[in-house]
Amino acid sequence: MDTQPETALRPDPIDEAAGRLSEPSQALDPKSLVMRFGADAPLRTDAGVELAPFQIAYQTAGTLNAAGTNAVLICHALTGDQYFAHTHPLTGKPGWWETLVGPGKPVDTDRYFVVCSNVIGSCMGSTGPASIDPATGRPYGLNFPLVTIRDMVRAQAMLLERLGVRDLFLCIGGSMGGMQVLQWAALYPGRVFAAMPIATGPRHSAQNIAFHEVGRQAIMADPAWADGRYLEEGTRPSKGLGVARMGAHITYLSEPALHRKFGRRFQGGSAPTFSFNADFQIESYLRHQGLSFVERFDANAYLYLTRAMDYFDLAEDHDGVLAKAFQGIKTRFCVISFTSDWLFPTSESRVIVHALNAAAAPVAFVEVETDKGHDAFLLDEPAMFSAARGFIDAAARARGL
Amino acid sequence: MDTQPETALRPDPIDEAAGRLSEPSQALDPKSLVMRFGADAPLRTDAGVELAPFQIAYQTAGTLNAAGTNAVLICHALTGDQYFAHTHPLTGKPGWWETLVGPGKPVDTDRYFVVCSNVIGSCMGSTGPASIDPATGRPYGLNFPLVTIRDMVRAQAMLLERLGVRDLFLCIGGSMGGMQVLQWAALYPGRVFAAMPIATGPRHSAQNIAFHEVGRQAIMADPAWADGRYLEEGTRPSKGLGVARMGAHITYLSEPALHRKFGRRFQGGSAPTFSFNADFQIESYLRHQGLSFVERFDANAYLYLTRAMDYFDLAEDHDGVLAKAFQGIKTRFCVISFTSDWLFPTSESRVIVHALNAAAAPVAFVEVETDKGHDAFLLDEPAMFSAARGFIDAAARARGL
Repeated sequence: MDTQPETALRPDPIDEAAGRLSEPSQALDPKSLVMRFGADAPLRTDAGVELAPFQIAYQTAGTLNAAGTNAVLICHALTGDQYFAHTHPLTGKPGWWETLVGPGKPVDTDRYFVVCSNVIGSCMGSTGPASIDPATGRPYGLNFPLVTIRDMVRAQAMLLERLGVRDLFLCIGGSMGGMQVLQWAALYPGRVFAAMPIATGPRHSAQNIAFHEVGRQAIMADPAWADGRYLEEGTRPSKGLGVARMGAHITYLSEPALHRKFGRRFQGGSAPTFSFNADFQIESYLRHQGLSFVERFDANAYLYLTRAMDYFDLAEDHDGVLAKAFQGIKTRFCVISFTSDWLFPTSESRVIVHALNAAAAPVAFVEVETDKGHDAFLLDEPAMFSAARGFIDAAARARGL
Repeated sequence: MDTQPETALRPDPIDEAAGRLSEPSQALDPKSLVMRFGADAPLRTDAGVELAPFQIAYQTAGTLNAAGTNAVLICHALTGDQYFAHTHPLTGKPGWWETLVGPGKPVDTDRYFVVCSNVIGSCMGSTGPASIDPATGRPYGLNFPLVTIRDMVRAQAMLLERLGVRDLFLCIGGSMGGMQVLQWAALYPGRVFAAMPIATGPRHSAQNIAFHEVGRQAIMADPAWADGRYLEEGTRPSKGLGVARMGAHITYLSEPALHRKFGRRFQGGSAPTFSFNADFQIESYLRHQGLSFVERFDANAYLYLTRAMDYFDLAEDHDGVLAKAFQGIKTRFCVISFTSDWLFPTSESRVIVHALNAAAAPVAFVEVETDKGHDAFLLDEPAMFSAARGFIDAAARARGL
């Protein structure tokens, strides 16, 4: 999903003559806190690889209390990062969840110690396919091991341990972040006091796998991808990655929102140009989404993280019975979905809620009425904010915070 | 939409090592009836171009009666063609609408003279961007004029006139074919006795434009596209076209159908390979859809026809009031939609029905319950067949056939 969803509709930066995505510059140079894990602390992945050394880039806000009971882990989505409440080093934009997290916000940084780490396999400072493979001295590329949602969670647990955090007061995230929240509760049942999975599901659906596969094929079809060795070759599969992003972006919105924001309005005039220019505002908007994305994201990381989401199936890990993933769990849950989210529709959240009910776990379920689609969790959604505030405040009281 | 939707799930023909679409052969060599129009009979297009010479490839079935009152025009969809009841010359597959059209079928070729022509701008024998521009002796490429749904209809009318058909007993088609049906009724109100637009809308929505734009960008991002001059360069943008087809194909199906047909089932095993191979059956299926499509379709034609659909907005042509498009019309309509079609949802058909009501046109409306999505109009849908049979038989009686 989109961590920069409120991008204004800028003038079309495309080469209008050809109507194609132009080649953008790339400069991935994140500034972040970084935790390094050496050969003695490998990440044991689901694929059976011991990844070492590796590093996890992260950001924090607030202060851990003496009892260590006020830690919050924020889990970011597919193309998100650790800059939840910090200016993004590449785009210069505000933190992607400043709507929800900050002093006096539902996730109150005056009260809680908030951590968010770039997931393993991504490209904002944590080890991923763009990192240097110490065995060869060259970028991993496709030699990087496939990682899963569970591997992301394991790496987060290793980071938190180093930060002196054993138990989480709250684990919260949307979309792929919500998958991590569910995985946290299932993998470390005694260590999560409250969990808030938003706009997510217990598995990736066939249709969602299909959309991801199209995006991957778009990247791999770009000759500049060079079998994943583009960093060595000095090329960038920007066109393929841009197309992947454009397609994915449609799935983060909703038809009503697209109709409301763009409709069939023409760009800069009222008549068609009878060409392949971006005649319609929606075309210009999508092209801009593609262009801005390739300036901040690594193509191979996109392959790896979409794959991790595709593989996610929490029931499958528990004899096909989702409730078994939450057996005997004490975590209190607040599950949130959005009426117009067709990527992770409410029916997916209901499956989670039913499994939690079957496992006798305390769970609140809020379906927020909105036309903003999947990306609603990143936007100004007062109903989501008030649900989050109520749930988190009550959990804090129960925790004695 | 897909004219070959019942393709069996074949073993994955992809280069598994790279996980990419392999380069297919291309051989567009249609055998068809062809009507040629010389310099004295140009097609006057909405873009203001007089296209001449040009030709329209077509197929027929049945016989025109002496009174000329039993002609049926079938309008094909985006990637369809004139082989509605004839073996396809490239794929060897049966006609794409043999479910609905044939001896004793709802569109009964024993009773009616049925014509279907390849739309102008396509690639199965009618003049399009892959045709030779007589002014240069080279393929048109992007020098071919943009055509609209109305231009397609104008060319069909010119063909029918040559065939001795002035009035249509029935005009029928799905998706882009349904747009042509609506355009026929609006453009030649006295010449269509009965009209059956299926799984279509009075305009292309913002979301549909967005999906088309992603497909076009995928094609244009392929260096082998060569600014549209690939035929001269001896290249083929097969990878880009394949990606475009994969993405579009998802929109022709439905989430429930994908879940039923593929779910999260693994290809040839029960465990992930932790790679970018086509692990999931849905991935293999989509790759096959991409591969088989590029063997039968021209990339520039795909650009042109998607653009024609995007531009379609019947209300816009009539002061923004759709009912005005049907003012005083005598045509009897049967509008059909499918419950799981999210590309042209039932709400779009309702807009058509409301406009016809406002224009006091006789209209029946059937929403068929199915999980097969947009492509349902090409499939075995008994409820659609019986609605078609009832409507067409009644129209035939009213016509004295």
